[in-house]
Amino acid sequence: MTIRVQLPDGSVREVAQGTTPYDVAMSISPRLAAAVVVARIRPLTAAAGVVATEDEGSEEAMYAGHETGERVVDLSTPMVEDVALELLKESDEASLKVVRHSAAHVMATAILELFPETKLGHGPATDAGFFYDVYREVPFTEEDLAAIEKKMTEVVARDEKFVRVEESREKGLTDYAAQGEFMKVHFIERFTKPGDEISLYKNGGFTDFCRGPHVPSTGRVKAFKVMSIAGAYWLGDENNQQLQRIYGTAFYNAKDLDAHFKRLEEIKARDHRVLGKQLDLFSIQEVAGPGLIFWHPKGSLIRKEMEDWMREECIRRGYNLVYTPHIMKRELWKISGHDGVYSKDMFPAMELDDAEYRVKPMNCPGHTLIYKNSPKSYRDLPVRYAEFGNVYRYERSGTMHGLLRVRGFTQDDAHIFCTPEQIGGEIEACLDFAEAVLKNFGFEEYRVELSTRDPKKAGDFFGSAEDWANSEGALRDVLTRRGLTFQTFPGEAAFYGPKIDVKLVDVLGRMWQLSTVQFDFNLPKRFELEYTGEDGEKHQPVMVHRALFGSVERFFGVLIEHYAGAFPVWLAPVQVGLVPISEKHLEYALAVKSRLEAAGLRVELDQRNEKMNAKIREFTLQKVPFVLVMGDKEAASDAVSVRTRGKGDEGSVSVGEFVARAVGLRDGHAMEL
Amino acid sequence: MTIRVQLPDGSVREVAQGTTPYDVAMSISPRLAAAVVVARIRPLTAAAGVVATEDEGSEEAMYAGHETGERVVDLSTPMVEDVALELLKESDEASLKVVRHSAAHVMATAILELFPETKLGHGPATDAGFFYDVYREVPFTEEDLAAIEKKMTEVVARDEKFVRVEESREKGLTDYAAQGEFMKVHFIERFTKPGDEISLYKNGGFTDFCRGPHVPSTGRVKAFKVMSIAGAYWLGDENNQQLQRIYGTAFYNAKDLDAHFKRLEEIKARDHRVLGKQLDLFSIQEVAGPGLIFWHPKGSLIRKEMEDWMREECIRRGYNLVYTPHIMKRELWKISGHDGVYSKDMFPAMELDDAEYRVKPMNCPGHTLIYKNSPKSYRDLPVRYAEFGNVYRYERSGTMHGLLRVRGFTQDDAHIFCTPEQIGGEIEACLDFAEAVLKNFGFEEYRVELSTRDPKKAGDFFGSAEDWANSEGALRDVLTRRGLTFQTFPGEAAFYGPKIDVKLVDVLGRMWQLSTVQFDFNLPKRFELEYTGEDGEKHQPVMVHRALFGSVERFFGVLIEHYAGAFPVWLAPVQVGLVPISEKHLEYALAVKSRLEAAGLRVELDQRNEKMNAKIREFTLQKVPFVLVMGDKEAASDAVSVRTRGKGDEGSVSVGEFVARAVGLRDGHAMEL
Repeated sequence: MTIRVQLPDGSVREVAQGTTPYDVAMSISPRLAAAVVVARIRPLTAAAGVVATEDEGSEEAMYAGHETGERVVDLSTPMVEDVALELLKESDEASLKVVRHSAAHVMATAILELFPETKLGHGPATDAGFFYDVYREVPFTEEDLAAIEKKMTEVVARDEKFVRVEESREKGLTDYAAQGEFMKVHFIERFTKPGDEISLYKNGGFTDFCRGPHVPSTGRVKAFKVMSIAGAYWLGDENNQQLQRIYGTAFYNAKDLDAHFKRLEEIKARDHRVLGKQLDLFSIQEVAGPGLIFWHPKGSLIRKEMEDWMREECIRRGYNLVYTPHIMKRELWKISGHDGVYSKDMFPAMELDDAEYRVKPMNCPGHTLIYKNSPKSYRDLPVRYAEFGNVYRYERSGTMHGLLRVRGFTQDDAHIFCTPEQIGGEIEACLDFAEAVLKNFGFEEYRVELSTRDPKKAGDFFGSAEDWANSEGALRDVLTRRGLTFQTFPGEAAFYGPKIDVKLVDVLGRMWQLSTVQFDFNLPKRFELEYTGEDGEKHQPVMVHRALFGSVERFFGVLIEHYAGAFPVWLAPVQVGLVPISEKHLEYALAVKSRLEAAGLRVELDQRNEKMNAKIREFTLQKVPFVLVMGDKEAASDAVSVRTRGKGDEGSVSVGEFVARAVGLRDGHAMEL
Repeated sequence: MTIRVQLPDGSVREVAQGTTPYDVAMSISPRLAAAVVVARIRPLTAAAGVVATEDEGSEEAMYAGHETGERVVDLSTPMVEDVALELLKESDEASLKVVRHSAAHVMATAILELFPETKLGHGPATDAGFFYDVYREVPFTEEDLAAIEKKMTEVVARDEKFVRVEESREKGLTDYAAQGEFMKVHFIERFTKPGDEISLYKNGGFTDFCRGPHVPSTGRVKAFKVMSIAGAYWLGDENNQQLQRIYGTAFYNAKDLDAHFKRLEEIKARDHRVLGKQLDLFSIQEVAGPGLIFWHPKGSLIRKEMEDWMREECIRRGYNLVYTPHIMKRELWKISGHDGVYSKDMFPAMELDDAEYRVKPMNCPGHTLIYKNSPKSYRDLPVRYAEFGNVYRYERSGTMHGLLRVRGFTQDDAHIFCTPEQIGGEIEACLDFAEAVLKNFGFEEYRVELSTRDPKKAGDFFGSAEDWANSEGALRDVLTRRGLTFQTFPGEAAFYGPKIDVKLVDVLGRMWQLSTVQFDFNLPKRFELEYTGEDGEKHQPVMVHRALFGSVERFFGVLIEHYAGAFPVWLAPVQVGLVPISEKHLEYALAVKSRLEAAGLRVELDQRNEKMNAKIREFTLQKVPFVLVMGDKEAASDAVSVRTRGKGDEGSVSVGEFVARAVGLRDGHAMEL
């Protein structure tokens, strides 16, 4: 009997039932067969669906059956019906996870060979590698991990085939119980039901209860590393056994693996929490509470530059600055609706006299009150209120992370109230502004995402179909007109309106959600906002929320990591470090300092009784853009010897020349020195 | 029998017992006797004391006996023992209140003559005039008040002598009860005890239970006005009768009376709450809560100018900007001590996870945490942290007043940590800075007050005698060195250290407490602050709190009233208003607008289809410094016709010339146009 196999190019092959994807690959070319990692098949009768990939570390995702017909399978899986077949090479996103999952089996094989008393939990792939949870009374040592890694090399060298075996659930349970594998027994009981066949994967003498798929053989796990160990209670219950979670990672080759570790080191070296301490930029104080930022003098100077630029730019672009209170009556939060669905994310209420007050989690209600304070006509619109609004939101204890996830932060928040006709222009101006922010702060790459309503769930979204169609259309038009590539996420809009998110890509290629431009059909209604139109009638204005930094704190954290603390001149808290070679050059150094300060440069003079090199090193550690050394020669010729960050000693130039260069870089917001 | 009367010049006269002050005045000169209003006497045997003046509207103060021997008496009071006598003329502060109290009697006389059914409460003098509480079922109308004022003129013209009569308490009670004067009965019962003699004052047919003193006769009440009426329940209990409080005021002469009303009008015209609304500067929103300020776009522009100037000046003067959270753990407020004595002035605690948080009422604890965050050496000192700190304090409901008394405000707060040797220089720099602030914002006059510890109550004050002596000495030295006149208030220091307050005097001569410079011996101890001295040992730094605006909100309120909303160019939200004469001049107006904006001027172009004069009037009402009118002539000659606030039409000048003038006034922070 034959089946039909349809390839991605649309061609169809008739092959014998039971043919494997590997057979198909070989029939095309042996080279292809060697390059293919795994296969994706979809019954030709079934509707196309999205492949369900494994959720990081989730048992359910590991073992749950697919609801769509499409699945990723071993290359050795016999095909029994008409299918669409994709042969996945390394370039396919799904492949690396399969390699990592196979690496987890290789690691388990090695563990059991070295420490046969160990009992196995589960071993999924993750975004960064894989892990295996195991139980063994004796903790593994660093040496044990090295031995496991070494043994894994042997298992890989043996190039054992991964063989899928199906057997009855009862046999699986009996066998595992006999071996004392209590966790495997638990997983079989949890994820299968009586009468099911269960699948096992064998390689050499090792067998694991596993849904698969896997690479063809252990030899395909070419580059890996056992990384670390962490403790966890079985099923998260501290009355249970303490498990050991052994982390590893795997790549297609040694080059990728090395690049990965280099990247991890870079990420660590750029950690804004570490740099924040090292450069004395900010702190979080235990006694004051988690998620609350103390901006130190040097961090505050950067914040001032950020805010000054943003404020002037807002004014230039026709925004009006406003200031609203941090605490407002609960009554207001009920009108806005925050004291409802959003209540659990707010700080609790404070009772005062006969009213309750809540700290603001958002600035919108305050801005709507200013809008409402005087009658508006179409001639007054658009009205654009901008505020550096300090908001407080409840993040669960333990979820805070440096500047990136906090309880108190400062939004560069603005609300635009406009007529429906003005929407397009306003959205375009917002995007233009967002791009200007990214450019000004040195981010070249970004992604744009459009979140729209799910029309099938219209009931979950506030506002008329017409409003949604208009505003989604306006957003799409603007994105298209500006030639921006964007991804659309249907159903991801807030309930009150569609939005555009701009995510910047930092120097390490990491994405950060920052700017957002959101429509709001809800608040104008709740606050009964209106304006008098040209027709003399009352109309409801359209409201747009937008934040470009997003959060000043978060943006600052991203900036620190992006620049690894080596800020461009205009942002650097200390722009020039002065090093007199000895005490007798101090007078000259003070004169130079005055001249630099007169040009508005931020200068630090190291007057300590230390060696020149120690002073230079100190400024270098502080990532100061320029260090000027001054000795007899410089003092005699009105010059300074310039050491530029990242470039080293650049020799002597006149003070005037140096000032012109530094001021030019500063005023041009130049990224490079 | 004779007594000795000592006059202020030290001379002593022997006069017959029973001689009155008026007799003494006459014996000196009849002209003096005519000019004297009342007398102050003090038994020559008694210790000198402070004269007890009547507290505004307080019944206790009206009737309570003096505890010191000194008292103000009628000129007709017989002197019975050796006394020191002062004959008080109009120039004496105490005299005007006596005139006003007598005016209240004149008003009561008039009321009873016109409306004999009226029952009397009490009628004290106040800082601004006097009032009388009366009971009458029928409310008095505006016409009634006019009639009363007219009748008072008759009473004054009759020049009835004020005669003091003493009689038994019992007779007084019986007589008043018979007349149904329930309030007088109440006052006699409350303020005298059985067996007392009570004093009554009679003029013509009118008699009043009264302690006095009074002017010699009704003819001495020369200039007065019945002003307004307000309701109040008898004894403040709403179950009691509704009284009518009739307000009036009185002066020595018509000129003073007129000046008073002119001043009231000026104060009213400058009321920052009225101007705040009229010029759309700020609002307070009922739904958000009392005492919470919403800064509208125009007010925010002024705030931005205030803050920008202050921030740059702070940096120039060696301060470091910092930002600290608005909400911090209760634990911190316990360490600082605020969550103790100051707790009732703070917003209540919020429980979150397993800790309580409180909104900050002060910035000091936050700044001390930054100081403590890294070790400090004497070389790092002085450390000066400055922050526009948003603080929230509980003010009782009903006590809030516009921008001047609020629940949420922004301090331009700074804390200086220094060595004891640096105190003098730091205090001097603070005072210099405070003077620069006042000068920059156009206040020429100010008063300086030094509050010191009461050495007799040393136990009430924290810190060693040496600390106090040093710091009070340093404050005095600096004030003296700068040649400042200052008043010293012993015992008025905060418990934690002495302070200097700077009170500005506005254009109406009103004083406003703004800048403060305070020592603090307490917080460095509570937070265990230290620095390593030159000796290598740990020392405790001295801490100075200082705020120069005091509160940004309050300072803004004072600015509005000082300038009556007609701000100098650099602060004016709209600096130039543009009025094209007709539609055909719009293009030229837009070109002028661009040129002005390129010079950084804040410009508003009135494009409405309105008459030129209506547009000029609108800008004038908004107190815009310059209004430029543009017609054919101007368009043809690259000129604008300038109308300057307060000066009117100044004719045509070239656009370039106008820009230079406006920019010069702006950048020079000039007060005059």
